[in-house]
Amino acid sequence: LSMAPLVPALVAVYYGENILPFIVTTVAMFGAGFVLEQLRDDRELGKREAFLMVSATWLIVPIFGAIPYLIAGQGTIAQPVNALFESMSGFTTTGSTVLAEISFEQHSHSILLWRQLTQWIGGMGIIVLMVAILSELSVAGAQIINEEAPGFSLEKLTPQIQETARALWKIYLGFTVAAALVYYALHFAGVAPNMGAYNAVAHALTTMPTGGFSPEARSVEAFAPIVQWAVMPFMIVAGTNFALLWYLFNGEPRQLTKNPEFRTYLLAVAAIGSLLSVLLVTGLGIAEIPTNIGQLSGDLENSLRQGLFQTIAIITTTGYASMDFNTWGESAQLVLLFAMFLGGSAGSAAGSVKIIRWYIVSRAMGRQLFTTIHPSAIRPIRLNDDTVNEETVRDIFVFIFTFVSIFVFSTVLIYLDALRIGLDISALEAISATIATLGNIGPGVGIVGPMDNFRPFSAPAKLYMVVLMWIGRLEIISVLVVFTPSFWQR
Amino acid sequence: LSMAPLVPALVAVYYGENILPFIVTTVAMFGAGFVLEQLRDDRELGKREAFLMVSATWLIVPIFGAIPYLIAGQGTIAQPVNALFESMSGFTTTGSTVLAEISFEQHSHSILLWRQLTQWIGGMGIIVLMVAILSELSVAGAQIINEEAPGFSLEKLTPQIQETARALWKIYLGFTVAAALVYYALHFAGVAPNMGAYNAVAHALTTMPTGGFSPEARSVEAFAPIVQWAVMPFMIVAGTNFALLWYLFNGEPRQLTKNPEFRTYLLAVAAIGSLLSVLLVTGLGIAEIPTNIGQLSGDLENSLRQGLFQTIAIITTTGYASMDFNTWGESAQLVLLFAMFLGGSAGSAAGSVKIIRWYIVSRAMGRQLFTTIHPSAIRPIRLNDDTVNEETVRDIFVFIFTFVSIFVFSTVLIYLDALRIGLDISALEAISATIATLGNIGPGVGIVGPMDNFRPFSAPAKLYMVVLMWIGRLEIISVLVVFTPSFWQR
Ligand SMILES: [K+]
Ligand SMILES: [K+]
Repeated sequence: LSMAPLVPALVAVYYGENILPFIVTTVAMFGAGFVLEQLRDDRELGKREAFLMVSATWLIVPIFGAIPYLIAGQGTIAQPVNALFESMSGFTTTGSTVLAEISFEQHSHSILLWRQLTQWIGGMGIIVLMVAILSELSVAGAQIINEEAPGFSLEKLTPQIQETARALWKIYLGFTVAAALVYYALHFAGVAPNMGAYNAVAHALTTMPTGGFSPEARSVEAFAPIVQWAVMPFMIVAGTNFALLWYLFNGEPRQLTKNPEFRTYLLAVAAIGSLLSVLLVTGLGIAEIPTNIGQLSGDLENSLRQGLFQTIAIITTTGYASMDFNTWGESAQLVLLFAMFLGGSAGSAAGSVKIIRWYIVSRAMGRQLFTTIHPSAIRPIRLNDDTVNEETVRDIFVFIFTFVSIFVFSTVLIYLDALRIGLDISALEAISATIATLGNIGPGVGIVGPMDNFRPFSAPAKLYMVVLMWIGRLEIISVLVVFTPSFWQR
Repeated sequence: LSMAPLVPALVAVYYGENILPFIVTTVAMFGAGFVLEQLRDDRELGKREAFLMVSATWLIVPIFGAIPYLIAGQGTIAQPVNALFESMSGFTTTGSTVLAEISFEQHSHSILLWRQLTQWIGGMGIIVLMVAILSELSVAGAQIINEEAPGFSLEKLTPQIQETARALWKIYLGFTVAAALVYYALHFAGVAPNMGAYNAVAHALTTMPTGGFSPEARSVEAFAPIVQWAVMPFMIVAGTNFALLWYLFNGEPRQLTKNPEFRTYLLAVAAIGSLLSVLLVTGLGIAEIPTNIGQLSGDLENSLRQGLFQTIAIITTTGYASMDFNTWGESAQLVLLFAMFLGGSAGSAAGSVKIIRWYIVSRAMGRQLFTTIHPSAIRPIRLNDDTVNEETVRDIFVFIFTFVSIFVFSTVLIYLDALRIGLDISALEAISATIATLGNIGPGVGIVGPMDNFRPFSAPAKLYMVVLMWIGRLEIISVLVVFTPSFWQR
């Protein structure tokens, strides 16, 4: 991990830019890693230690990751709070930005690549965490991943965890390379003029972790329609359970195609995508004519592309934008806002609540309507021919509850703080800023729209959002347990 | 029940007003009652029939209850949709109104008394329903009432249900008479000039059912401060579990005072009341100087009274107003909005989610933080030294989930419908209109503020709110089950 800053360092050499930020970061990370190694060496990794390590890692790494921004001293992220925000947004694959201006005039190629790279590293970390660690620790119903992929037989939470990690790593790296090649191939074929090698790699690095950072100020809107179509399947893959992808490459594709979460996920994309496309093509969902892209109303290909792209970008919590959806009407924006709560699949780098939890919850609600009239009926919830443990169901309810409670509470705080500093935001904007950070999505609507940024918020509000990104990324419960008194009792 | 319209008929005779509306209603209700009696006579009352009867009753009675408004033809409630809204709002003890002008010039004494009476009848019905029927049917975790009052040994859901009903009825009637006497005594003592016999009875009729209708346009603001103080304890009682009040009068007051729901309820009132009072007395929670009442900022008695009164009125879902809280700032209004989701105690006529459910949910969340680190620990949730059934816990989670889902969905619908008809409302106003009706509270903020009314909404929106009041009142699940396919299968 401490080698990571050397990648942008090489890029810096290539572009003749300053390599100091990355050298310092490498040294600092090496030092910290060495100290950590010493501390960890002679300890058994118990549940308690696992939680502490996970929570601490996702706090310490982003702090170190902010060093390049500080040393480079370019633009708005030269300020400490902004640097931390951008770094946390990267490592948590959120993609919310505080960059006032995204351009190579303002920022060096190497710094913008570091920004992309933080998401790629964070995404890999999250997938291993979800599939191999949180599912074994039974956090917030994450044990459902084990029930989803019962034969995914690699060892977990043991010294052999590295074997699982390696299997996931291969898939992740493979798709990243594939995405970069496809993006660049379009450039090579002459249909994507500005998707050069730098951009192809930079976007591949933030597609797979459902990150959403882009070195282009106008995100994926900057590229040709064909590029936007090409990004979509990769986002879909990125939002799929990696344990299921593993089956796909090990001769059992049926495990993927018959999986209820995967099917519900595709269904949600299709349903919401169609709804948005209809709203756009009929003009019902448009408030003002967008700049840069053609008229949507009446243009089927364009409407379908924008509707589908934004649906996928939001459900997978990638947060790319193929256009400025601030120009959409309130009905279409509310649909997007609703989609923000869905989240991709468990076992991917997608954030928010995640499809499988909503699936289980809706099953439990349907069951209650049945058992209310037939109280003696026993109706276990089934998943892949297996019965879902009732404790898992309960854990999932508690998780969504905690998620929603923190969301509501935070929305109010962020709203009041904005009023305090005289920042004129609507309730909808406060809602979207909160879910965009807590759900690790990236952009929201209005003031935090896809072509805007989170800079206008006060420093305390931004630090609070850093915390939201952090806890949201670790499924909340893993962080909260560390703060309970019983955690520290022997 | 069909005799009820005769009460305002007598009042109509006294004031020399038209008695026709009430005579027609009585005849219609008698007829309907006779038909129902015939249908019911030879049937065993199973679970299925109980749900159907409960749902149908709370739909049919409000429809008949709208007849007086239609026949009287006075003001805005002469229109059918408005009449139904007002009647449903009455029988569900919601207290949201569509009356554009509340005055004796516009409406007769007898019609306004009928409005009060609908709430009183509805409240009594709800208490019996909650304590004796829904708790036995295990609806939405209402079985918790049995666990709260385990020794409340009267027969339920049997022919002896009438005995339970009679016990509850005595308490309800007793407190109503007491409230009327206290209110009138203040008038008699000369400290409450406009709290005459009519007003004393009219307000007693809507205090105990946590109704909130008032024949005064400015609600309880119309009366002297001493009256406002006097109303508070009666609202507190109205929001208490009547099964626990029964203990109080049967030599076991400890059952009430040691009850966790009752204690949490008082704690919530004290905490939120203090917070609001501080916001008011410091001026932080005031946006504009209210008319009619003195300056709040700096006036401790006035601030404490308003803060406490509104807290109690909202938590108990009574919805009286001691002042126009539309003049409050956004921070204070958000506190009120938050309190709307709490609700009073189970086993009272209070609506919304109710304290005991939040209590159980918060216990379950705390437990999960514990069991995440200590997975082998068995930690049942306790209530009154008894263990709460895990199925009850799950039912409560599902209930709150359903409640919140319907709330969010309805807020969006109501918001979009308002935009459609060009009614300029904010997200906050849409939120408050939804929770005010679904939670059977009454007033919200802004356009649906305590001195305003729900008339500006479109007819479809008002009919939708009629449905919200109906399902909210019956704990949602009791209505939803009737609409499941499995309900109708033998
Ligand atoms: K993201
Ligand atoms: K009410």
